[in-house]
Amino acid sequence: MVSVLIVYYTKSGNTKEMANMIAAYIRNENVDVEVRDVFDTTPEYLLEYDGIILGSPTYYGDMAAEMKELIDKSVKYHGELSGKLGGAFTSSAYIGGGNETTLLSILKAMLIHGMVVVGVHNADHYGPVAIGSPDERAEKQCRVYAKKFADTLKSLKGFDIVD
Amino acid sequence: MVSVLIVYYTKSGNTKEMANMIAAYIRNENVDVEVRDVFDTTPEYLLEYDGIILGSPTYYGDMAAEMKELIDKSVKYHGELSGKLGGAFTSSAYIGGGNETTLLSILKAMLIHGMVVVGVHNADHYGPVAIGSPDERAEKQCRVYAKKFADTLKSLKGFDIVD
Amino acid sequence: MVSVLIVYYTKSGNTKEMANMIAAYIRNENVDVEVRDVFDTTPEYLLEYDGIILGSPTYYGDMAAEMKELIDKSVKYHGELSGKLGGAFTSSAYIGGGNETTLLSILKAMLIHGMVVVGVHNADHYGPVAIGSPDERAEKQCRVYAKKFADTLKSLKGFDIVD
Amino acid sequence: MVSVLIVYYTKSGNTKEMANMIAAYIRNENVDVEVRDVFDTTPEYLLEYDGIILGSPTYYGDMAAEMKELIDKSVKYHGELSGKLGGAFTSSAYIGGGNETTLLSILKAMLIHGMVVVGVHNADHYGPVAIGSPDERAEKQCRVYAKKFADTLKSLKGFDIVD
Repeated sequence: MVSVLIVYYTKSGNTKEMANMIAAYIRNENVDVEVRDVFDTTPEYLLEYDGIILGSPTYYGDMAAEMKELIDKSVKYHGELSGKLGGAFTSSAYIGGGNETTLLSILKAMLIHGMVVVGVHNADHYGPVAIGSPDERAEKQCRVYAKKFADTLKSLKGFDIVD
Repeated sequence: MVSVLIVYYTKSGNTKEMANMIAAYIRNENVDVEVRDVFDTTPEYLLEYDGIILGSPTYYGDMAAEMKELIDKSVKYHGELSGKLGGAFTSSAYIGGGNETTLLSILKAMLIHGMVVVGVHNADHYGPVAIGSPDERAEKQCRVYAKKFADTLKSLKGFDIVD
Repeated sequence: MVSVLIVYYTKSGNTKEMANMIAAYIRNENVDVEVRDVFDTTPEYLLEYDGIILGSPTYYGDMAAEMKELIDKSVKYHGELSGKLGGAFTSSAYIGGGNETTLLSILKAMLIHGMVVVGVHNADHYGPVAIGSPDERAEKQCRVYAKKFADTLKSLKGFDIVD
Repeated sequence: MVSVLIVYYTKSGNTKEMANMIAAYIRNENVDVEVRDVFDTTPEYLLEYDGIILGSPTYYGDMAAEMKELIDKSVKYHGELSGKLGGAFTSSAYIGGGNETTLLSILKAMLIHGMVVVGVHNADHYGPVAIGSPDERAEKQCRVYAKKFADTLKSLKGFDIVD
């Protein structure tokens, strides 16, 4: 069974809500998922899973400092995350308010770790975005992303995908 | 009087509509504005104005090839656009669909030309975004951006801003 | 056997030289590789391979219009590239001259197609960069990237990696 | 007289060295410059200057968490930095190692604050980059950038530029 770690930083609760949505949909795909607050996460945790998804509110077009701190500390294990599958999600106050660049700030850090990342052709392309409190639109994004992430992870790890 | 050139590439008409909205709002600020289709625009035109705003639909998270062609050709005048004020706008089919990265693809090209660019703290931050056909939200974005662009241009060129 | 298509746009010959280097190193990994000039490439070609690597010179921090045109035309097959592995490389005149943002312009387009992309932890992180004519440094980048790309592709497609 | 605040985060000393280089070259242009360590900087300081330049090492293609923390805290004054001129610089271990995306992470935050940013056509385009310890190349970048930043700031604030 493949495993996924979802780490979130939240202030309003929106990003945490998205973390739980994505977790539930990935579990539906028969994947082991753990959800952690960034304050309860050390870089060591990142080593233990096949896939890692990081979620942050959109703060000035970039992940929150609290999430960046985890990534900066993960340099201790630089090279050891190589080949894992990575993903990102964000909650944002506005359309055009920096949500895409926030997702890319996370994905770029993952590429630098030598990780694999995946986009979605028929939903939010770089990862799920909620505008304000997660609504039906955001839930759909989480659902489509979770399925794509799980399928890609199974392919990477040599598991069959049963549709 | 300061002058602005707005160049758009459009297929559905949405980006052209935004170009005209922004033009009207910038003219309200007592600025001379010309709007041109990218197919009627040569790099020479870029030299003639104090400010340049480029608009493109969101195609794969980047400006359309037709707009990129104009930018690639502008290398002929590399250095001569330095100090001009630049801006960008985009129409996109979806939230999270690449609109921010499209705006940044244009702004980055302008920075490489040595141009000045400006963001907006209380509206779409990197430039106006329309999701689908320009609606009231998009019109407001164009209005706020036009005012900020015009004010910044006047400051840069040593004109007084009368509020 | 997995297969890779490398498409390049070149003016000075530098990007073509990188294409051939990467092709040679990927072939070493027992992968079928085809190298094509962007002018001889239609979107239909993209459908035929497991992996796609696009190379462009750095033009204003973005891929050249000629490469963007291929991507824009590929919208015809939107969804059909989903799950393929994508990569990028660039030749650039200068350090700090837009090479990273050029690579990301290509990778973002691939994510929007629903493709998978991979970074490198111990070499140019977003893909190989040559500063000027490809030198020893650039060749090393191509070599490390080719191996990582080939290994990731085999994992994705369920092949064993033999080291 | 116009004024500039330069804030840096440094670990190896390289980014601090760049901060001091840029400060010296901006002072040459008859601009008042203060240089501060990010740990001695509160968001209140950002309000007091016409121009703000932030420097960070390249950590996973993004500014260091310590610098992001300052930016996140500056939300308290969202809107009050609007119209100020912003800039960025970075020191990085490698070419292609995330230096450009680090600069853009800072510039994007500035755009979201409604600030003005400026590129350079004849040197590192998004801001000065040092690869390793600042060498002659890096010093030249700092010099060209400092002049461009000072000139643009004077234009924005209505001062004459004397060459």
